[in-house]
Amino acid sequence: MVPFSPTHPKTRLSPALSARERRDFARVLLADVLWALAATPGVPEPTVLSTVTLDVDAGVPVVVDERSLTVAVNDVLASTDDAVAVVMADLGLATPAALESLFAPDADVVLAPGLGVGTNALVARHPDFRVDYHGTSFVDHREAADAVGASLAVVDSHRLATDVDEPGDLTEVLAHGEGAAASWLRDRGFVLAATDDGRVRAVRNEP
Amino acid sequence: MVPFSPTHPKTRLSPALSARERRDFARVLLADVLWALAATPGVPEPTVLSTVTLDVDAGVPVVVDERSLTVAVNDVLASTDDAVAVVMADLGLATPAALESLFAPDADVVLAPGLGVGTNALVARHPDFRVDYHGTSFVDHREAADAVGASLAVVDSHRLATDVDEPGDLTEVLAHGEGAAASWLRDRGFVLAATDDGRVRAVRNEP
Repeated sequence: MVPFSPTHPKTRLSPALSARERRDFARVLLADVLWALAATPGVPEPTVLSTVTLDVDAGVPVVVDERSLTVAVNDVLASTDDAVAVVMADLGLATPAALESLFAPDADVVLAPGLGVGTNALVARHPDFRVDYHGTSFVDHREAADAVGASLAVVDSHRLATDVDEPGDLTEVLAHGEGAAASWLRDRGFVLAATDDGRVRAVRNEP
Repeated sequence: MVPFSPTHPKTRLSPALSARERRDFARVLLADVLWALAATPGVPEPTVLSTVTLDVDAGVPVVVDERSLTVAVNDVLASTDDAVAVVMADLGLATPAALESLFAPDADVVLAPGLGVGTNALVARHPDFRVDYHGTSFVDHREAADAVGASLAVVDSHRLATDVDEPGDLTEVLAHGEGAAASWLRDRGFVLAATDDGRVRAVRNEP
């Protein structure tokens, strides 16, 4: 499933995008993730887990659950013996190849860490594994898998590690994105530019 | 080869580490990279390409070349028909498995991008490929490979994408590092801590 929170999304991108743009960009990122999942061999159709009713057609089933992400996901984990995958909606570099590396390991729990020690994607195949989404969730999910005796695999992917929620992340989308999010940024004037200190940023050329 | 610049290293880590600590930490990171390379199957012994004579025994041959990184690397590329690998000395998450993904692709040029569009590691097997290290070097190396008709592979690795040169990168080392750099940071009081905004930082507990 792909959790998505449509209300006031991507506030940390405020320095780079207006409120309306952030709203639109979040939906473009979601569409990219759904496209990448649909093109990943062997992955069943995902469900969007949304906090409110979506105002656009996601093209896949949408389940509305207004509770916190942790509670909503754990309810799903408790309700099934099937494998459950949770892939964040803002992985602007996700590709089918990167997602294959998430589904490939034969482990009870597969974790794809995000930059900053979050958990950007996971697959759970163990009846007792539960999630706890917060700042250091990757470290805690690693420990949680161990605590219930679940075998663990960690996916080493720059694409899956890159969740797009700060202006610096737009740099990665412009350099590596293969979906609609990169085109969306370019259409709005964003380009890569080297700064005086040798670092690279996404800067916007006003029309 | 592993380029290393021992003079005033890691200045962007000044908010987190003293000058002496930055000097020591740079050498610990280098040792981690050399260890990971030594443990990667099929990889010959690396050479350290240093801008000045090293004051420590790297355990591998050291070539001193005081010229810029781009000039020094291109001299090596021009002097041989063998494959040349260039792996940065500050990849604090590098593991043999991650480095295997660099050497595995059967392509003329293999690039491992760094966060911020640099080039953290590459393998060159094409006689006409040359490097140009600067801010957006990954994008330019991708184009340079294309310009000389070299086949290209891009490695998707969070571990190889993480070069350690800003305080935020210490977070990744503490969460994912498997070498001496993570231990070195912990020995000096660094731990992961969640901040009020839900992000995670490496903070230092003073003794």
